[in-house]
Amino acid sequence: MTPNLQAIVDEIVAAMAAETERGAPARYIPGLAALSTDRFGMAVVTADGATAMGGDAEMPFSIQSISKVFALTMALGKIGDQLWRRVGREPSGNAFNSIVQLEAEHGIPRNPFINAGAIVVADVNLSGHMPRESIGELLRFVRFLADDETIVVDEAIARGEAETGYRNIALANYMRAFGNIHHSVELVLGCYFHQCAIAMSCLQLAMAGRFLMLDGMQPGAGRVISPRRARRINALMLTCGHYDASGDFAFRIGMPGKSGVGGGILAVVPGKASIAVWSPGLNASGNSQLGTLALERLAEATGWSIFRARA
Amino acid sequence: MTPNLQAIVDEIVAAMAAETERGAPARYIPGLAALSTDRFGMAVVTADGATAMGGDAEMPFSIQSISKVFALTMALGKIGDQLWRRVGREPSGNAFNSIVQLEAEHGIPRNPFINAGAIVVADVNLSGHMPRESIGELLRFVRFLADDETIVVDEAIARGEAETGYRNIALANYMRAFGNIHHSVELVLGCYFHQCAIAMSCLQLAMAGRFLMLDGMQPGAGRVISPRRARRINALMLTCGHYDASGDFAFRIGMPGKSGVGGGILAVVPGKASIAVWSPGLNASGNSQLGTLALERLAEATGWSIFRARA
Amino acid sequence: MTPNLQAIVDEIVAAMAAETERGAPARYIPGLAALSTDRFGMAVVTADGATAMGGDAEMPFSIQSISKVFALTMALGKIGDQLWRRVGREPSGNAFNSIVQLEAEHGIPRNPFINAGAIVVADVNLSGHMPRESIGELLRFVRFLADDETIVVDEAIARGEAETGYRNIALANYMRAFGNIHHSVELVLGCYFHQCAIAMSCLQLAMAGRFLMLDGMQPGAGRVISPRRARRINALMLTCGHYDASGDFAFRIGMPGKSGVGGGILAVVPGKASIAVWSPGLNASGNSQLGTLALERLAEATGWSIFRARA
Amino acid sequence: MTPNLQAIVDEIVAAMAAETERGAPARYIPGLAALSTDRFGMAVVTADGATAMGGDAEMPFSIQSISKVFALTMALGKIGDQLWRRVGREPSGNAFNSIVQLEAEHGIPRNPFINAGAIVVADVNLSGHMPRESIGELLRFVRFLADDETIVVDEAIARGEAETGYRNIALANYMRAFGNIHHSVELVLGCYFHQCAIAMSCLQLAMAGRFLMLDGMQPGAGRVISPRRARRINALMLTCGHYDASGDFAFRIGMPGKSGVGGGILAVVPGKASIAVWSPGLNASGNSQLGTLALERLAEATGWSIFRARA
Repeated sequence: MTPNLQAIVDEIVAAMAAETERGAPARYIPGLAALSTDRFGMAVVTADGATAMGGDAEMPFSIQSISKVFALTMALGKIGDQLWRRVGREPSGNAFNSIVQLEAEHGIPRNPFINAGAIVVADVNLSGHMPRESIGELLRFVRFLADDETIVVDEAIARGEAETGYRNIALANYMRAFGNIHHSVELVLGCYFHQCAIAMSCLQLAMAGRFLMLDGMQPGAGRVISPRRARRINALMLTCGHYDASGDFAFRIGMPGKSGVGGGILAVVPGKASIAVWSPGLNASGNSQLGTLALERLAEATGWSIFRARA
Repeated sequence: MTPNLQAIVDEIVAAMAAETERGAPARYIPGLAALSTDRFGMAVVTADGATAMGGDAEMPFSIQSISKVFALTMALGKIGDQLWRRVGREPSGNAFNSIVQLEAEHGIPRNPFINAGAIVVADVNLSGHMPRESIGELLRFVRFLADDETIVVDEAIARGEAETGYRNIALANYMRAFGNIHHSVELVLGCYFHQCAIAMSCLQLAMAGRFLMLDGMQPGAGRVISPRRARRINALMLTCGHYDASGDFAFRIGMPGKSGVGGGILAVVPGKASIAVWSPGLNASGNSQLGTLALERLAEATGWSIFRARA
Repeated sequence: MTPNLQAIVDEIVAAMAAETERGAPARYIPGLAALSTDRFGMAVVTADGATAMGGDAEMPFSIQSISKVFALTMALGKIGDQLWRRVGREPSGNAFNSIVQLEAEHGIPRNPFINAGAIVVADVNLSGHMPRESIGELLRFVRFLADDETIVVDEAIARGEAETGYRNIALANYMRAFGNIHHSVELVLGCYFHQCAIAMSCLQLAMAGRFLMLDGMQPGAGRVISPRRARRINALMLTCGHYDASGDFAFRIGMPGKSGVGGGILAVVPGKASIAVWSPGLNASGNSQLGTLALERLAEATGWSIFRARA
Repeated sequence: MTPNLQAIVDEIVAAMAAETERGAPARYIPGLAALSTDRFGMAVVTADGATAMGGDAEMPFSIQSISKVFALTMALGKIGDQLWRRVGREPSGNAFNSIVQLEAEHGIPRNPFINAGAIVVADVNLSGHMPRESIGELLRFVRFLADDETIVVDEAIARGEAETGYRNIALANYMRAFGNIHHSVELVLGCYFHQCAIAMSCLQLAMAGRFLMLDGMQPGAGRVISPRRARRINALMLTCGHYDASGDFAFRIGMPGKSGVGGGILAVVPGKASIAVWSPGLNASGNSQLGTLALERLAEATGWSIFRARA
């Protein structure tokens, strides 16, 4: 462990408390809008098993799109590279663009981390299951990764999304029109909204991300996925993990990461650390304002970057 | 140096010679279309200064878009982060899309590695110069990086592009309509076409890329750019370096890289190696068919990937 | 009545029977795909009350998008020009484009004759009703216009669309995401699919269109709409009535008209005639191949065109 | 002649003088920006040869895009329906969209009245000529139509456009990249900018439009074009004559028409009248604010509309 990692985290937590530009919570999901932008948490688990954390690091929040990383990992376990016949691997540009391209590219979403792509992934994970089972399976996988049986779905959040998710219903029906959704849209979105509503703390998330920093190995539990697949998921997080700010995140921070509109970000430094930050206020790109800033500070303080000769 | 690096390169050169799917040369640039897809070259320069190469590694070819990396580095040296007011840092999706977004985003190209962005960079580099001086300055920079005074511009190629580059003229005029090109379009494109027509061998290119694997230091010559800027250029190459196949290149190969329609690719593994490959046949995405494959083999054989815990 | 109108119609019917390029039926709606492209019917009702017809002029077919004209007339009767806050009046370009613009223009469809616009119109017509009542109201209106109580909805067609209309479900949910659909998507589309499944013959359709050639007056029944509104509906049919071939239809035929994927076209020559043609084979633009050709012949033979000095 | 036509025109001129919402002149063309929005002129020439006019009806202004009607007529005379292999006949949606479609449709502009289409028409008219001759030919044609030898090109306006027309240069180069511009972009645009800079008064314009209201006959001079071609040009003006407000113009006014950013509009009522209005202030769609309003008043007062049973 970087000797002074806890000190670095403490400093960042203090700096974030003093920040005045804190963003605004996502408004379109009932249950997220009410969260205070005062909240900030951070947890770092290193490759050698040490942990540093601070702020609201143990308070559960809605992981939202971060769940796409775990769902993708599970879907690849089910059907392997066949998944790539139904989902692309390229960044998508802005949201407007992603719809245009869904149309131009015949219902094949650009990557598994935009909503359309994650809905296809949910469709894959639903195969041969009842929705309840599919969600149960994903939840068990996340609990296993985090080594924590207490992780649950926040049913109120899941219901809130199901009631207002017209745009996701539209996306799913588009793709169904192209034959790229195989189950009932209602069931697929039921799974998708529940997956997004999984509640985890920074500590739990950082623990769950360990296999991605360790070439697919889970400390104390053995291999989760092959080294090649771990590298590839990291690559997808780097190029597609932050909506239309993925390029900027790579530019400023230089770590594979995946953000969610709940204000969380999971970031991975292969061979070094699995990191989770959380603050509900979002910036203009829909990524956590303080979370992004905190990761930038951490990268500077530790020298962690995949684009650097030595850390 | 990886002890058996030359053996690995030899094996790849042999394997490439046996490949039957070799792609097709770019047709729209007179002078490139006639190149034989039999050609293949590869050169690797490691962080500790060793060199391995094979095939046509010392035959000069038109570096085309790879020049965007050197021009960007020079422009950042001139105006620093002010550049980002005029060029974005996000992947652009397909070519069709990049034009749509140029329009939607008021003449600000998505990144410095698509043509529109590189034309803005050429406009920046032209400031305060005559075109001949601007090209001379870039050429001197590339010679310095490659430590080779023999590198020249292939005037026939430059003239060929100037005569047929209607789409680039269109892009430049669009951006000028938005005020994002400051000099005469003719002069800017004159510089741009000459920059693309720089002729280099794999060995020269791999030498010229060393500063990007070494946090901005040039062996034997000192600091070229700051470590932060080196990381950031690497990040841009990873997210935007291969047109609409950037995501796939990151997924399969996991190295920052920049390709050109001349069939060359410069790839960087920070702390490990600067690599150049060349074969004129392009795949459907416009990147060298054998070049991409050769880098994938090299990544597998060496374990070099920025998404891996240990190499 | 043009003295030789029946002779003209007879000649056209004979000519159409000899045509070998007959298009292909719409495949995506079960129940339409099986129709024979041998079918062709034509009916003309003139301003002075004469009727000429031939071929399968009395065989009912699915009017599909032609229903949008009647539904629009009804919605304007309900809420008047307030409708134009929720629907535009501009041609939409191709289908791809209409989705892009729906997104760019915040859920306001370009005009009431593309699917998205007609779904908003159905939402307006549903206000204060149960779906069954709303469909009943439209059906009564169409029966009144055609002066024929036997007109019915083809329930098998309606069900077929409801089962496969994923793209329409997507459009409706998009617009709901923007707040431009006020009722449940399921109910609105239920009405929409039933409206499209109204079955009418050419004769019934030509009768139903009389008010549009007579400045809003229905012979024997009095005023249906104001002269201004009649002109305006005619204008919308001219600019937007044939998907992305509206310009070409105006160019070649010069009559306001509305086509449907069932192979029918309703055309109006103000002051002269209300015309309906039907043949299930569609051309590349989705309009009846023979229907379009027959109208072009009729326009040539009669001199009917709104772009002509004298007929 | 409608007995009270002069009285109607007088009333409209008076009403326009009292209007406070007068729009703003086009800013991007030097020489137009300085025009006073106080100006308003109107001229009506009827099918029976009568003339009514008022306001600044005899003051010359820059006809700009109205010239596209005359240039199209000339190009059709040169190559006939072969023109339609290089230009479409469909409305284009908004300006943003027209660029997207130019790209998607391989350099074929949507119609001859958007800039891209008019540039192709200018390229056709240039064939076999020097630019000076081509402009001379068009100018002679317009003088012949208006029966007025005093009409000239405003060279200052032409030069102003040539200096700032980067977007048009971009469009022309795009199309040249697709092979749809055959001459040097510089020469084609030279012709195009000169054609747009023709200066005419309302009276001259209304005179020049007579052949379109008379099925192609020019009073006192004989046939200019065939009746079919006259109808077709009218159809194109109706569907495509007012940029992205063409549908609205048809809806509100119901006459084929073509507007220009100089503030002029030429409108045609087949069999009834050729009308020109002018006022430099433009509305949000780029069409003359008072000109549009004046035509709407004229349509109401005279009953002239192609969508009406009787006038």
